[in-house]
Amino acid sequence: MTTTTRQDGLALDAADPLAALRDVFMLPEGVTYLDGNSLGALPKATPARLAQVAQHEWGTGLIRSWNTAGWITLAQRIGDKIATLVGVGAGELIVADSTSVNLYKALKSAVLLGAPSATRRFIVSERSNFPTDLYIAESVAREHGLELKLVDADALAAHLNDELAVLMLTHVNYRTGRLHDMAAITAAAHAAGALVVWDLCHSAGALPVDLTRADADFAVGCGYKYLNGGPGAPAFVWAHPRHTARMDREQLRQPLSGWLGHAAPFEFTTDYRPALGIQRFVCGTPAVLAMAALDCGLDVFVQAQALGGIEALRRKSIALTALFAELVEARCTGHGLTLVTPREAALRGSQVSFAHPNGYAIMQALIARGVIGDFRAGTADAPPESSDLLRFGFTPLYTRFVDAWDAVEHLRVVLASGEWREARFAQRAAVT
Amino acid sequence: MTTTTRQDGLALDAADPLAALRDVFMLPEGVTYLDGNSLGALPKATPARLAQVAQHEWGTGLIRSWNTAGWITLAQRIGDKIATLVGVGAGELIVADSTSVNLYKALKSAVLLGAPSATRRFIVSERSNFPTDLYIAESVAREHGLELKLVDADALAAHLNDELAVLMLTHVNYRTGRLHDMAAITAAAHAAGALVVWDLCHSAGALPVDLTRADADFAVGCGYKYLNGGPGAPAFVWAHPRHTARMDREQLRQPLSGWLGHAAPFEFTTDYRPALGIQRFVCGTPAVLAMAALDCGLDVFVQAQALGGIEALRRKSIALTALFAELVEARCTGHGLTLVTPREAALRGSQVSFAHPNGYAIMQALIARGVIGDFRAGTADAPPESSDLLRFGFTPLYTRFVDAWDAVEHLRVVLASGEWREARFAQRAAVT
Repeated sequence: MTTTTRQDGLALDAADPLAALRDVFMLPEGVTYLDGNSLGALPKATPARLAQVAQHEWGTGLIRSWNTAGWITLAQRIGDKIATLVGVGAGELIVADSTSVNLYKALKSAVLLGAPSATRRFIVSERSNFPTDLYIAESVAREHGLELKLVDADALAAHLNDELAVLMLTHVNYRTGRLHDMAAITAAAHAAGALVVWDLCHSAGALPVDLTRADADFAVGCGYKYLNGGPGAPAFVWAHPRHTARMDREQLRQPLSGWLGHAAPFEFTTDYRPALGIQRFVCGTPAVLAMAALDCGLDVFVQAQALGGIEALRRKSIALTALFAELVEARCTGHGLTLVTPREAALRGSQVSFAHPNGYAIMQALIARGVIGDFRAGTADAPPESSDLLRFGFTPLYTRFVDAWDAVEHLRVVLASGEWREARFAQRAAVT
Repeated sequence: MTTTTRQDGLALDAADPLAALRDVFMLPEGVTYLDGNSLGALPKATPARLAQVAQHEWGTGLIRSWNTAGWITLAQRIGDKIATLVGVGAGELIVADSTSVNLYKALKSAVLLGAPSATRRFIVSERSNFPTDLYIAESVAREHGLELKLVDADALAAHLNDELAVLMLTHVNYRTGRLHDMAAITAAAHAAGALVVWDLCHSAGALPVDLTRADADFAVGCGYKYLNGGPGAPAFVWAHPRHTARMDREQLRQPLSGWLGHAAPFEFTTDYRPALGIQRFVCGTPAVLAMAALDCGLDVFVQAQALGGIEALRRKSIALTALFAELVEARCTGHGLTLVTPREAALRGSQVSFAHPNGYAIMQALIARGVIGDFRAGTADAPPESSDLLRFGFTPLYTRFVDAWDAVEHLRVVLASGEWREARFAQRAAVT
């Protein structure tokens, strides 16, 4: 690539077939937002939708809106929109609860459905998986007399054996941005007789995901990163139809057997009879306002569809991340930054991370300049990517090539000037 | 009472010290809303707050709002507002997830903390408890080799014995409106060596609740009924400090061990170390938009405080429900309505239910006239209140005495004219 000036970045934007989508979002002036992998930006349509749901559906419709506004089917209707992004059929995926809660349902179900065997005593995951996944898996393992075994990504293959009950992986690692080969890993785990639960938090909406083709078993994901559903948006859960069919036949339940996962919730019977299919993974009453915001976030993908859809988004994402990594390495040399994200496009998600021992202060200095990425503290638990990380997310729906250029220019100045050494950048806030 | 004309109802409203609070809510013209025990009304302040959170906190603040807008402490800050309504201290109660999910956490913790004993093999609840409670309890019982035993309210005492592990009750029965004596029942369960989990869905915000004085063990409740937090608003969970202190000492967890219940969530360590106190009952990322709406609902109680607070609300609630029941019995005689709500004020919550074999059609006819109560189908599982029920909720924050009068007048006409027999009222909708 020969992008050597800001003008080159602007030219790339001018040629970008997805450029118009940026205008669908409200992005603050003076900010280069490279943290959509932590919290997606606000679609302009969302505030009006929230007002409509609050004033018309809730305020005027009141309890009647469960029927008249279709609140009762939100979990399925919004789920169907996500289904198209992750390669599963309509009616196979529902929106509910948080990622952590859905992961609990999925893991408990995977343990329940897995081949019973005294030797299959491990839930295996990646050592640098997002902590909430590990914490939930640790609880599920305890409850079932299993053990959570954490391994490095490169060592995974050695642990896909007859001791494996469930493999739980996040498709794109939240620290490094490394993308797992879902189909190959799933096939290897199946060959070992185990089930696989995929966390799509950092891939759904950012790149093509095909759970069906990969023959995955369960998947969960969040609504507030690349899906732009708003802070703490509801999450989703999917189970392969072969598993829900078996759960149907054998009247199996996931343990969070709330009333809206009942076969006939409005019969108010005292005994639980699970709904058919994925509907049994619904638990309590849906958070309607939060669901409405997520729905707006997903509608952006309907617009994107006309411009090439998720394949076009992936092409742009690869171009953005490649450009950013190249520019940093070309323009910020000699300051101790080490790229930890795979250089090979097929091996990375939609983010770029650099290790740096002073990553926290550097990121604070960038944020003070309006370049918002984030910092992920190093942990001795997660070699080889255990250093403090500067993490930059690229959401192809709204991130421009010139944003990549501008961010690198600010980073260059912050490093070259030593600005990050100022005392005000050393103080850590509650959330980093 | 001598309320024999609509004018009498208006006079009661004129003398009502809480009357001004109705203006805090947006209530549609032409509707008499008696279903606030299913979905509370919209506070006028909520849409503006949602717009502010969406546009300013999310849209402009983006990821920074976790710190700058205090999203990270929402669970506690909103929890503290509910704490004042249920008689517990600041920092003892958190807002998160749904009632069903919180009940799972509370029940699993109660089983964990209860006296280990081979003979304590029952979770006991009321046969006509709200189904989601029973479904969740059934799952918890299965997981721990226990059995869920359902008994009639009047027979509870006989089951508080050395076979009881956990007693789980809803403070106010959702069908009959019957109010349990929380302190007496808790004391009896404790005397039997068991723990008690209270569901406050139909009491929090409607009447004084004092979990501390009752020496309760765990409590959960929902945000969208009397707390007016909006459809599917986040729920709450409380554990007595003696239990959280023991969980602290012994590093015990509830099983939904998500990252925001970790002692140091932003250290991103691979092993779960529960946060101290009730914070360990937080699981995933809070639904910020839904939390903001709930916060607005709770702010109404701050305004109510200056007018006499929850004690004044209870006095009005008792007067409203008494008036309604008396008017129905005086003016709708001979049409087969049977009062199933206790006549004694101290034994009922803030609703009045009548059994009628044609309850569904009668309620549909009322709704067509703008009187919105709800219908709860009878079930053979729930004697003696097993009939089809017409259920009318009275939210003292916004329900007027003249509303009670008007509702009864419509009911009288619907019954006397036989209007409810029209075919259009027979068809059942998805949600009733």
